[in-house]
Amino acid sequence: MEKDLVIGIDVGGQTTKCGIVDARGTVLTRTVIRTDDTTDAKEFIAHLAEALKRIIDEAEAEGRIRGIGVGAPNGNYYTGHIEFAPNLKWTMDGSKVIPFAQLLTEAMDGIPVSLTNDANAAAVGEMTYGAARGMKNFIMITLGTGVGSGIVINGEVVYGHDGFAGELGHTCAVRYNGRSCGCGKSGCLEAYASAIGVARTAREWLEMTDEPSLLRSLEEISSKDVYEAAKEGDALAQRVFAFTGKILGEKFADFIEFSAPEAIVLFGGLAHAKEFLTEPIQQAMDANVLPLWRGKVKLVYSQLKESDAAILGASALAWEL
Amino acid sequence: MEKDLVIGIDVGGQTTKCGIVDARGTVLTRTVIRTDDTTDAKEFIAHLAEALKRIIDEAEAEGRIRGIGVGAPNGNYYTGHIEFAPNLKWTMDGSKVIPFAQLLTEAMDGIPVSLTNDANAAAVGEMTYGAARGMKNFIMITLGTGVGSGIVINGEVVYGHDGFAGELGHTCAVRYNGRSCGCGKSGCLEAYASAIGVARTAREWLEMTDEPSLLRSLEEISSKDVYEAAKEGDALAQRVFAFTGKILGEKFADFIEFSAPEAIVLFGGLAHAKEFLTEPIQQAMDANVLPLWRGKVKLVYSQLKESDAAILGASALAWEL
Repeated sequence: MEKDLVIGIDVGGQTTKCGIVDARGTVLTRTVIRTDDTTDAKEFIAHLAEALKRIIDEAEAEGRIRGIGVGAPNGNYYTGHIEFAPNLKWTMDGSKVIPFAQLLTEAMDGIPVSLTNDANAAAVGEMTYGAARGMKNFIMITLGTGVGSGIVINGEVVYGHDGFAGELGHTCAVRYNGRSCGCGKSGCLEAYASAIGVARTAREWLEMTDEPSLLRSLEEISSKDVYEAAKEGDALAQRVFAFTGKILGEKFADFIEFSAPEAIVLFGGLAHAKEFLTEPIQQAMDANVLPLWRGKVKLVYSQLKESDAAILGASALAWEL
Repeated sequence: MEKDLVIGIDVGGQTTKCGIVDARGTVLTRTVIRTDDTTDAKEFIAHLAEALKRIIDEAEAEGRIRGIGVGAPNGNYYTGHIEFAPNLKWTMDGSKVIPFAQLLTEAMDGIPVSLTNDANAAAVGEMTYGAARGMKNFIMITLGTGVGSGIVINGEVVYGHDGFAGELGHTCAVRYNGRSCGCGKSGCLEAYASAIGVARTAREWLEMTDEPSLLRSLEEISSKDVYEAAKEGDALAQRVFAFTGKILGEKFADFIEFSAPEAIVLFGGLAHAKEFLTEPIQQAMDANVLPLWRGKVKLVYSQLKESDAAILGASALAWEL
């Protein structure tokens, strides 16, 4: 039987999303299981294999699965391990290094498994099905709770010497007096240009001034609140995005000087605020890049349907198996 | 006859160095011609071809030249053009875009020519004959009058979408109140960590304080003077290198987060000051990189004989032809 389908798996801290995908990028059937209801990696793999076998049955896809692609935090492409992921509670024989790909292949009767981190998976997804189709050189930036990145050079994801390349969220955006970041460093891009960073900027600015703002009435402020306020014309909220865009654009200039990509592709919750982000990003990019790239590097937004994007990204890895 | 030799050409603003190189990296014979005695690109190519034919005769290498590699400022690997190089005065038919590789192949009776910028050539040279032998992922940083870079990922130089990737000297080292750089931007790494930058730091610090220093007796200060003073124990001169090393290390941390290299390889005049640079670079690198890379990325120095390095780097390109 022709092996014309793949499975994509997106491992998150709370839930793990799975889907069977065809060559055109249609998700035929999907399921979600809890990630956090066990701390035993082997038990989780058993639950996962059970769920996958169920959707394979549903899709009448027995014998047609070419491979399984997994996007997971701290996923290492070279080893197939998930290593010391802060948001995943699993251990195996007391260790936080989980040979995920190998365990899953064994549980799935030998179907090959390819694994990488979520942002790299998103880059492969965008190249296979989305905004980066036909591009050989681009940088994917995921603007979510954190800032992730997947770098594609000559049509291939950059994994580096050890498999962990592409941590652009932890390059330095603000050298002196930079905000402390969850990674332990300070001044990281992620501390400013993530959902958490945007909310923090808004809170800091509200404390520093008496400027009226719709955000003052809220008890807690999320990046979504800032976006809603900006849409209603709130000047402070709009300036928060202008500031965020400027910081992103400044760092994008550095990234362009590194790998000279055709485009930078933005994805994730914050990327919804494109009407407030695009211009400041573009301006700061052009002001900080060498003249030869001014106005030449495209800034594009993901074209994948949000609910399917994570599954599609992971599934795209499996076509390369 | 076996084509067992290559030619390496290093095009500089004043002189162009050429050599015939064997597979072990021995420069068998060499010559130097003026770069700046004509503004006519075709006339220069004619001079160059004449010089090359002379050394081919000398080395009895007729029929044995497999290819020619050229390292040149603003050299584009994809097109073989030298485009708008500020330090080269040539034009061709009124244009500053010179189809150098094609012209040279024609003048050399069809010998294939590969061309890239000087820092990329240095990276290939180091990978073929030098400190990066056996490495598939490393970043070459050339610390000369300016700061150049050649990035190798998966054993291949990164050229990017347009052929100009790897301008790490123009990534931003100092965001606010940064020094103006020759490129028109401000705060570039090159404005601090080049020979010119080091001399400038020394001059600024001498003006700002009354601290005694051997450098005060000099009319003009070069980076070499600062190095000599540091070797004689001059505290200010040593602090200039500590500052330079810190700025380099901070940016190296960003580069590591991009491509996760096995090593960063330093080359060029300033790299001689390694006894004053290594420790501050290493400290700043480790302080600014994610924990997973701390202490893991090697900092190594070029192993190519300085007088041959430029020719060897360029020649190494030709083996790939």
